Amino acid sequence: MTNLNSVQYMLVYNMFSLTIAAMFAAFIFFIVGRSQVGEKYRPALLVSGLVVAIACYHYFRILNSWEGAFTLINGQYVPSGKPFNDAYRYVDWLLTVPLLLVELIAVLALPKKDREGLFGKLALAAFLMIALGYPGELSTDTTTRAIWGTLSSIPFVYILYVLWAKLGSTIPSQPPYVQTLMKNIRLLLLFTWGFYPITYMLPMFGIAPETSLVSVQVGYAVADILAKAFYGIMIYWIAYAKSEADGSLPAKH
Amino acid sequence: MTNLNSVQYMLVYNMFSLTIAAMFAAFIFFIVGRSQVGEKYRPALLVSGLVVAIACYHYFRILNSWEGAFTLINGQYVPSGKPFNDAYRYVDWLLTVPLLLVELIAVLALPKKDREGLFGKLALAAFLMIALGYPGELSTDTTTRAIWGTLSSIPFVYILYVLWAKLGSTIPSQPPYVQTLMKNIRLLLLFTWGFYPITYMLPMFGIAPETSLVSVQVGYAVADILAKAFYGIMIYWIAYAKSEADGSLPAKH
Repeated sequence: MTNLNSVQYMLVYNMFSLTIAAMFAAFIFFIVGRSQVGEKYRPALLVSGLVVAIACYHYFRILNSWEGAFTLINGQYVPSGKPFNDAYRYVDWLLTVPLLLVELIAVLALPKKDREGLFGKLALAAFLMIALGYPGELSTDTTTRAIWGTLSSIPFVYILYVLWAKLGSTIPSQPPYVQTLMKNIRLLLLFTWGFYPITYMLPMFGIAPETSLVSVQVGYAVADILAKAFYGIMIYWIAYAKSEADGSLPAKH
Repeated sequence: MTNLNSVQYMLVYNMFSLTIAAMFAAFIFFIVGRSQVGEKYRPALLVSGLVVAIACYHYFRILNSWEGAFTLINGQYVPSGKPFNDAYRYVDWLLTVPLLLVELIAVLALPKKDREGLFGKLALAAFLMIALGYPGELSTDTTTRAIWGTLSSIPFVYILYVLWAKLGSTIPSQPPYVQTLMKNIRLLLLFTWGFYPITYMLPMFGIAPETSLVSVQVGYAVADILAKAFYGIMIYWIAYAKSEADGSLPAKH
């Protein structure tokens, strides 16, 4: 940990607070919005709600840990000696990444045959991806970070490849409007997930340690908002469009 | 209580935090997910929700007690003199174990004749199991721990035996898909409940006191997640499959 000036400290602090607000608003939207789509797609929205609820809890803890890790001395934020607990993010991902996979598989409403074994393979890969990334996150040595990061990218690329292919194979059977949404969510998946490894790599670029600390925290927060809240909204749109297409929307007068 | 290094202390800390997140996510899932199964199975999901809500509360307290029991001095976590309150777990089990039994009996939807007296016998055995285990948990003496542990295992084995036999007798009358789930939940019951006595016995194996302290806490947390949250998800699957089989699922268009 290094000294931060008040702009740096407050930027991270306010970003964490923004993330808390975004996550709980998303939670209310997904849970209450369930009744606005067909029965078949409600489990997907429920799981979206769980993901953002878990993330909201962890950002509360992360914000508290950030506050505790610094002491304000003469306008400078100086490390207090209490560690900033990075593990909250990894614990969060251990719980939420498998749920994000469930969410996507649930909204696709694949036939039982295509679903079988799919979740197990992806969940195992997700576990490896997170567990292999963590030792690198803890390390201050660039080479160690690079090695663990590379190992972690193998299951990462595998998950994205399987989801990309699986989403691709279901697109042609959808109504035209849903096809566009599915193509967008496929791009959003690449874009948001791609944010994580870029953030992970930031400390290797030889930037100042304060800049590195601040940008990693802001980067992960942005990635979490996109990959959880915004991604869930996309799932909602798909669920709504599919309900409209198959006539399962709750009756409108 | 012994000194812990920061890896040991944080491992337990983060495991408790993970358990809180898992329990409240499970709570939301069971309560909101009630509307996704047939009316007949909703009480079982409600009881699953109570179990994880109670556990979530206790893990908040356990985490606070853990934080209060240590002081960070020169990177070492040193006992602060405030005791770590182990009683939270036993109070939790006093409330949740009878509810776990109710949950299982409710989802089985046994005829009234088969249900009668069953809960009373099992609840009494659960009370004895927990009450007899506690004096051993408090003791630092291996022999005392072994004696109370052995006494506690008598009602423990009795409960498992009755549930195993009762579940077994209802399996043949279920549709094929539900039969597989019931066989799985029977194994899960043995597996997750088996985690508790193994964790209880850890301090008797002559391992270092720090290792023993850390592994007992992590072991119980893992056992609680499996026996409460994961077990509840299994109950949900059974409820869903049975609703599908008896045509009571909420209408899909």
